[in-house]
Amino acid sequence: MFLAEVVGTVVSPVQIAALEGRTLLLVRPVAPDGRAAGKTRIAIDRAQAGVGDRVLVIDEGNSARQILGDKTAPIKTLVVGVVDYVEAGDALVYDHRVRS
Amino acid sequence: MFLAEVVGTVVSPVQIAALEGRTLLLVRPVAPDGRAAGKTRIAIDRAQAGVGDRVLVIDEGNSARQILGDKTAPIKTLVVGVVDYVEAGDALVYDHRVRS
Amino acid sequence: MFLAEVVGTVVSPVQIAALEGRTLLLVRPVAPDGRAAGKTRIAIDRAQAGVGDRVLVIDEGNSARQILGDKTAPIKTLVVGVVDYVEAGDALVYDHRVRS
Amino acid sequence: MFLAEVVGTVVSPVQIAALEGRTLLLVRPVAPDGRAAGKTRIAIDRAQAGVGDRVLVIDEGNSARQILGDKTAPIKTLVVGVVDYVEAGDALVYDHRVRS
Amino acid sequence: MFLAEVVGTVVSPVQIAALEGRTLLLVRPVAPDGRAAGKTRIAIDRAQAGVGDRVLVIDEGNSARQILGDKTAPIKTLVVGVVDYVEAGDALVYDHRVRS
Repeated sequence: MFLAEVVGTVVSPVQIAALEGRTLLLVRPVAPDGRAAGKTRIAIDRAQAGVGDRVLVIDEGNSARQILGDKTAPIKTLVVGVVDYVEAGDALVYDHRVRS
Repeated sequence: MFLAEVVGTVVSPVQIAALEGRTLLLVRPVAPDGRAAGKTRIAIDRAQAGVGDRVLVIDEGNSARQILGDKTAPIKTLVVGVVDYVEAGDALVYDHRVRS
Repeated sequence: MFLAEVVGTVVSPVQIAALEGRTLLLVRPVAPDGRAAGKTRIAIDRAQAGVGDRVLVIDEGNSARQILGDKTAPIKTLVVGVVDYVEAGDALVYDHRVRS
Repeated sequence: MFLAEVVGTVVSPVQIAALEGRTLLLVRPVAPDGRAAGKTRIAIDRAQAGVGDRVLVIDEGNSARQILGDKTAPIKTLVVGVVDYVEAGDALVYDHRVRS
Repeated sequence: MFLAEVVGTVVSPVQIAALEGRTLLLVRPVAPDGRAAGKTRIAIDRAQAGVGDRVLVIDEGNSARQILGDKTAPIKTLVVGVVDYVEAGDALVYDHRVRS
């Protein structure tokens, strides 16, 4: 899993059953302090996340297939939660309530 | 999944049943704004994509095996859609119709 | 597996059974001498590790599913041990007892 | 899959049945124009490739196990074809016949 | 698979059956000419390798599980051979006998 920020959405007429009707979010990995830390990828939204949200992205094994309840879904990158807060050492480096 | 641009094609007499007759596309990952963002890889075309197209590439788990309907196909990187448009925040950063 | 340092924690209302009640640790990969060596990721704690600890992180195959005893857990990155010491050549480059 | 150039061979008395008698090729990923584009890895030769050849390397899922017809072979990086030519846009950026 | 040099060992009281009693080697990926080429990882020793040895590391699919004969071992990075020699083009760029 990794921390990321939702930076956009992609619209494409993909003809794969497992992707139909799903929102494709552009997610950019971020370090605990919020700086960009990796290449933007595309994830399926499972947490009603929107642009600007700090999110928890799962990309492990056949994670998405299991969460989506579809054994044959060729997907593993999912936004599974909007982050409440992040602590680094004793400091609160991200707090969703302050941001809102 | 990731965004990419189709930058070329490769021709090689590969003798693997799952690859016979398939178009091998060179795809270069791009950031939402279109800048190159990663190393070029080779993907199987499943979206009638051509050189210059902005595309959605899937490379997850045993994705290609499932999409191609061939459980033993040793392939996971597929072009699954030509992108219509990409939004980053409130801005439309890519629009296929403008480009065409 | 890789060496890492625990640098923080993440709190997010993730609604996935396999993650409920689990501590989400921010782990930063480190070189043998302790310098940062890679992007921070999120791991499940299986070793009562805390911020500042040097730890052994496993991220291989469906590792976490096996260790957690849950075949369907979409998790593979786990902190499996707090490191006692690291030897590089003949030198002791990290010693947990000195640090404590 | 990715494009690579064969840059050498490795000899090691590995005692794993699936590797016995196999040629271990050092392959360096290259961009379409031939520049180095990634770290050298070791691949099993399945295409009678030699040093200097531009090749197609497969490293997807359990690819090698399937191609080698050995379900338990712990191998996934294989040279599966010597490249005939590469087109980038309208230009022929690599042509095996010219090189020979 | 990749070439690496053994640079150290890690000691940690990991409580996972598959890791008990195993030597955890710090291995640093190297280019054919011996220069460092990637981040240090931790591998299980299967070749009686020691610090300073040039080794062949396998990290493919569920490789380790298969080699260790333990289907549930959450391990995939193994040192499977000490390298005898490496040829790059016509040159012998590494020779274990000279080094010894």
